[in-house]
Amino acid sequence: MRRIAAVAAALLILGIVGVSAYFAGMRAKEPELPPPRAEISVEETDNEVFGRYYPREYESYKKNYDMSKGPSVYGGSQERSNLEAYPYMKTLWKGYGFAEEYNEDRGHVYAIEDVKKTKRNPPKAVCWTCKSTEVPKAIREMGDAYYSTPFKEAAGRFKTPVGCSDCHDPKTMQLRITRPAFIEAMEREGKDVTKANRQEMRTYVCAQCHVEYYFEKDTYKLHFPWEKGKDPEQVYNYYQEIKHTDFTHPDSGTEVLKGQHPDYEMFLDGPHQSRGVACADCHMPYIVQGNTKISSHWWTSPLKHMESSCGVCHRGSMEELRQRVLYTQDRTKDLLDRAGKANVEAINAIAEAAKNPRVNKNKLAEARALHRESQWYWDWVSAENSMGFHNPQKAMNTLGKSLDLASRARDLARQAVQP
Amino acid sequence: MRRIAAVAAALLILGIVGVSAYFAGMRAKEPELPPPRAEISVEETDNEVFGRYYPREYESYKKNYDMSKGPSVYGGSQERSNLEAYPYMKTLWKGYGFAEEYNEDRGHVYAIEDVKKTKRNPPKAVCWTCKSTEVPKAIREMGDAYYSTPFKEAAGRFKTPVGCSDCHDPKTMQLRITRPAFIEAMEREGKDVTKANRQEMRTYVCAQCHVEYYFEKDTYKLHFPWEKGKDPEQVYNYYQEIKHTDFTHPDSGTEVLKGQHPDYEMFLDGPHQSRGVACADCHMPYIVQGNTKISSHWWTSPLKHMESSCGVCHRGSMEELRQRVLYTQDRTKDLLDRAGKANVEAINAIAEAAKNPRVNKNKLAEARALHRESQWYWDWVSAENSMGFHNPQKAMNTLGKSLDLASRARDLARQAVQP
Repeated sequence: MRRIAAVAAALLILGIVGVSAYFAGMRAKEPELPPPRAEISVEETDNEVFGRYYPREYESYKKNYDMSKGPSVYGGSQERSNLEAYPYMKTLWKGYGFAEEYNEDRGHVYAIEDVKKTKRNPPKAVCWTCKSTEVPKAIREMGDAYYSTPFKEAAGRFKTPVGCSDCHDPKTMQLRITRPAFIEAMEREGKDVTKANRQEMRTYVCAQCHVEYYFEKDTYKLHFPWEKGKDPEQVYNYYQEIKHTDFTHPDSGTEVLKGQHPDYEMFLDGPHQSRGVACADCHMPYIVQGNTKISSHWWTSPLKHMESSCGVCHRGSMEELRQRVLYTQDRTKDLLDRAGKANVEAINAIAEAAKNPRVNKNKLAEARALHRESQWYWDWVSAENSMGFHNPQKAMNTLGKSLDLASRARDLARQAVQP
Repeated sequence: MRRIAAVAAALLILGIVGVSAYFAGMRAKEPELPPPRAEISVEETDNEVFGRYYPREYESYKKNYDMSKGPSVYGGSQERSNLEAYPYMKTLWKGYGFAEEYNEDRGHVYAIEDVKKTKRNPPKAVCWTCKSTEVPKAIREMGDAYYSTPFKEAAGRFKTPVGCSDCHDPKTMQLRITRPAFIEAMEREGKDVTKANRQEMRTYVCAQCHVEYYFEKDTYKLHFPWEKGKDPEQVYNYYQEIKHTDFTHPDSGTEVLKGQHPDYEMFLDGPHQSRGVACADCHMPYIVQGNTKISSHWWTSPLKHMESSCGVCHRGSMEELRQRVLYTQDRTKDLLDRAGKANVEAINAIAEAAKNPRVNKNKLAEARALHRESQWYWDWVSAENSMGFHNPQKAMNTLGKSLDLASRARDLARQAVQP
């Protein structure tokens, strides 16, 4: 019996060793990670070079050039005139570049082409900041003088549209922040972006650009106005404090604030962000290519690939889910248009009052102040790229405020000329 | 060897039989279902009688008497004065009973007590319809004459507050509809409520009462105004068509519509209803008593028992989820108050204009029409019991419309007196 036991024990050990060796072999057969990225220079900004080492990601990136997929109902990276879709915008921005041309973006890979041809005539190099992978180098070389360099003078530096090196360290492929304005804004909050975890970075890399910003006086340095917080009311209060204005409306005389694209700020505290979802979870979903899982680098509306984006968490029919998104967006659009028109009426009423020699100047000034704030709230939702989806309740509440204040501006302007 | 095989086979069969018998025995030990409900009369309306056979459900029902759990932030079945919380309501409903007294309900089991003591002085028996389990019998006996019987004349019939027989067939305990207005409204849509499936019934039993309604002219018959649909705009259009008005505002002269509690209509197309969730899933969650799972019959805000209500589908911290609910409700409350105040201003502006002998009567009439519609939209969200939660986007959009129209009413009234 002892001999039998010994043989059995030996066989068992052999078996364990064999199985372990088999699994070890399987591991050995996996493609080596990391790949030979050492060949990419730390200064590399050419997307094609990255593409040689990361062909799968690069292939998905190249889908950004393809406009044939068509837009989603309210967005989707295809060029179309917003001024045609929302004619009242021409009145709201009269006298400012946006009233000349304001198109839905074609997306990241067209950034250089599109910024060159826009009729808005960008004045300074600061307007290159989110358009090209060559910008961080320009800032390193030129320092803060970069921002106020004439736009066309700097143009020769920029050949490569938004791409790999904007968000990836070429050596380690770790996510990184390359735009100083975001780093500085976070520093003002006491946050060191180099200490952020991976999931935070999957939002931060987008928040380098998809935010509200302004140019500092004289220097044109890019600044994210988050000193008092990131909600539209808080940003408004900051702009009040520093007396920032984008343009004076020629009809109403209002000192107007023009919103940029506060996608990140709107997203904060929304149903997705509050559950720990990052921008990349929806806009860069994991997809399978062959035997490898990669993050899609086709940046567009998740409505174009709902199975990969939404289906990870949401069970059931994607078509039903799409109807839910539209239910939210349709109602946001309704309030957006109502608020937009209320602002147009405020402008017209103020302009009318201003022409009247018997106008009560205090009431007129108060009407302009109300209009400044109401148009800001309208613009916050309008400029943001999700038609309310990123945070439905914040969007609707912000539009409701705009409606309320715009109607008060309109009212007060009319009262300002009454005997 | 054959003998061994035969013995082994015999043992195997014995084993299977034994295990099967064991499990069959376990089943046999479960409490008998259905219980001896045959003893409850088909006409029974006394909740205590049901309670003898369904002690677990009855115990949870009796929690409705306990007010010590306190309200949730925006509701929760505890008595408190809404007129104190929202003073502008007194202006909106001036001249109507709601301006005299409008309290947050204490809940179903206090229905009889509370309807007897309200200062709103219900005129007819129709106001008993959702207060007592004895109502269906009264309607059977009296026919449509029930509805227009003087309230106090009918009072003697009603002793038992909302309870078991309102939603359950005493013989089978199947869910059933006992209020004719709901059955008739569904019939007009071609729907036979006796054919509804169980999950539909878990909403329909609530929708017998938690809806918008009006009394038909002269007969006081209860009518759910769903002929054109159940959204506030559609119900408004129906009221326009039949020229229904609840009261004429003494200051503005507007023919005002008073909303009831359109919880069911608001819930439709919301994030929960559209995913197949029924009222009972959140308001009557499954709870475990001993070895038995029952539906809780404590009707209150799910915020008081989130683990049972929300935790079935939503993972993660209930406290975080509560903050999400409040995020939605706080923003709804903000727009509700803005719209409420805009409606007060419309009333005041119209009243002012109406006093002026040089008023433009057409503009004045148009201002009143706008105010009638704007106050309706405000009231729809105000009267509904979830502070927007049942359908956040519908609530916010409806309030936005109210704000827009109220400000136009205010404007137009002021224009109506300008030279």
